[in-house]
Amino acid sequence: MEKGKILLALTGIHPQRWHDLLSAEREVVLEPNGASDPSITYAVVWKQKPNLLKSLPNLRVIFSIGAGVDHVFADPGLPDVPIVKIVADNLTQHMVEYVVWRVLDHHRQAMLYRGQQQKKIWHEPPQRVAGDISVGIMGLGSLGRAAASALLSLGFAVNGWSRSERPMKGVSTYSGEAGLIPFLNATDILVVLLPLTPQTQGIVNYGLLKELRRRNGLGGSVLINAGRGRLQKDADILRALEDGTLKEASLDVFEVEPLPKTSPLWGHPKVFVTPHAAATSDPAHLVPIMLRQMAAFERGEKLENLVDREAGY
Amino acid sequence: MEKGKILLALTGIHPQRWHDLLSAEREVVLEPNGASDPSITYAVVWKQKPNLLKSLPNLRVIFSIGAGVDHVFADPGLPDVPIVKIVADNLTQHMVEYVVWRVLDHHRQAMLYRGQQQKKIWHEPPQRVAGDISVGIMGLGSLGRAAASALLSLGFAVNGWSRSERPMKGVSTYSGEAGLIPFLNATDILVVLLPLTPQTQGIVNYGLLKELRRRNGLGGSVLINAGRGRLQKDADILRALEDGTLKEASLDVFEVEPLPKTSPLWGHPKVFVTPHAAATSDPAHLVPIMLRQMAAFERGEKLENLVDREAGY
Repeated sequence: MEKGKILLALTGIHPQRWHDLLSAEREVVLEPNGASDPSITYAVVWKQKPNLLKSLPNLRVIFSIGAGVDHVFADPGLPDVPIVKIVADNLTQHMVEYVVWRVLDHHRQAMLYRGQQQKKIWHEPPQRVAGDISVGIMGLGSLGRAAASALLSLGFAVNGWSRSERPMKGVSTYSGEAGLIPFLNATDILVVLLPLTPQTQGIVNYGLLKELRRRNGLGGSVLINAGRGRLQKDADILRALEDGTLKEASLDVFEVEPLPKTSPLWGHPKVFVTPHAAATSDPAHLVPIMLRQMAAFERGEKLENLVDREAGY
Repeated sequence: MEKGKILLALTGIHPQRWHDLLSAEREVVLEPNGASDPSITYAVVWKQKPNLLKSLPNLRVIFSIGAGVDHVFADPGLPDVPIVKIVADNLTQHMVEYVVWRVLDHHRQAMLYRGQQQKKIWHEPPQRVAGDISVGIMGLGSLGRAAASALLSLGFAVNGWSRSERPMKGVSTYSGEAGLIPFLNATDILVVLLPLTPQTQGIVNYGLLKELRRRNGLGGSVLINAGRGRLQKDADILRALEDGTLKEASLDVFEVEPLPKTSPLWGHPKVFVTPHAAATSDPAHLVPIMLRQMAAFERGEKLENLVDREAGY
């Protein structure tokens, strides 16, 4: 098979570096050019324009530049070609750091200490060790499993929940609808790393948060969402914070992004906001992986990290 | 040997829980009682009153309830009996959590994100991965080594410095006076876990901080002191923060504790203050260890975790 041409179709992300790195090895057409172009073999996409990809008669593979692929499926005219998602050490590393950072920040009572510092209060509150705390990870894909490993090695007890059973050494795993409540009842700090699908949209709602364990001494449960904003109901998180169902939250994602200035989450004293920055898609790391996969595909090898279209991730 | 009696001599720490737990197995005399008592075999101490211990004619072993023992040596009349320092999983666990938490908090730009949140700014700054950052640990005792392991497993590059060479797999180790500048020159985030001795007092001064690596993209070096306050010069840290030698600092210890309300460290926007709370000496975990060591000593076994009086730790 000859060296295929690439359509680069990114929305809301500056294409320059992606273009430069991809075009070092292959011909690249930059959207809005390229519609209906029969010479295009691959599409590298982030929130591609609706019906653009189906206009390409010889498109063979779609590459998503994010770990999640809900943005690809948002296209009503998505053609039936294989979709490759990104699994990259660099992206995984960023995400593991974010999750461990946020878990430790809540566990070690950063918000309390920051408040004390402002008032010049020298006081040591009781402090549990990691082994007394159960961190529950929703979503045991490559990111969730890597985060679980790092938390285990720091001494935390770790629970995991996924759609279908995914055993993991040292982790108490739960699965499916039947496993959700028991998983939540055993979890102090909830970490959300689920893919966004029709089944998971809005799953992090008030009813779910109400099921988290609120153990004496911890002062309430904690939510960390580093998955997708539309997994959660912003208003339900606020309600849970107000009535003490949640003690604190770290949110990297929101129902609407950028988070509107009018959102009360910005100014909430119990919320730590980051701008969808937990794990960056760095072209310097991701482009070589894509180029290697294209070359392998052209040698007749199987594509790796294929999206399961039925599951939606 | 018969079951020895204990003198409990704590200053600035409430003795109740220590007393209750120790007296479940042995007779305990609570200071200010017990001076000159010939029936006392062991002293369990935190900042004992000067010359108290030398009044005990049959004292055989001193147990420090902290990992550091500088408070024991502050006694000008310290008698020449073995001193046992605490090495406890629980205390080590607390310290490892603190170090990893503070390293990640600076590495992941918490202060920048908190500032952005206050102003409702949605902006993702460049973010390096852990592997691009060198964390340098001063002091490779049991706490320093455990912290190094945890940081390595999260992907950080780790340097270590100690008085005499202490090799450790995966860590670039330096030692002695000759190794100090090379160690600092290769370090982005400095973690201080040294014992306080006449040689180390005031070692964290402006000249030392000036030698830290200030690499492009990190925006300056970071200091984390979880050792002892008198290792550092508070005024030098402030100077280094003011002139950009240091980007940020996390301080758990201070020259004078509690940190005086007049200290500018309390209100400094680049300093995170905790009240000597990195690792708690929890009697529920430490008393059983001491009682086991006393029983072993009475069976004629060797004492573990003995302090080297010449080195001072």
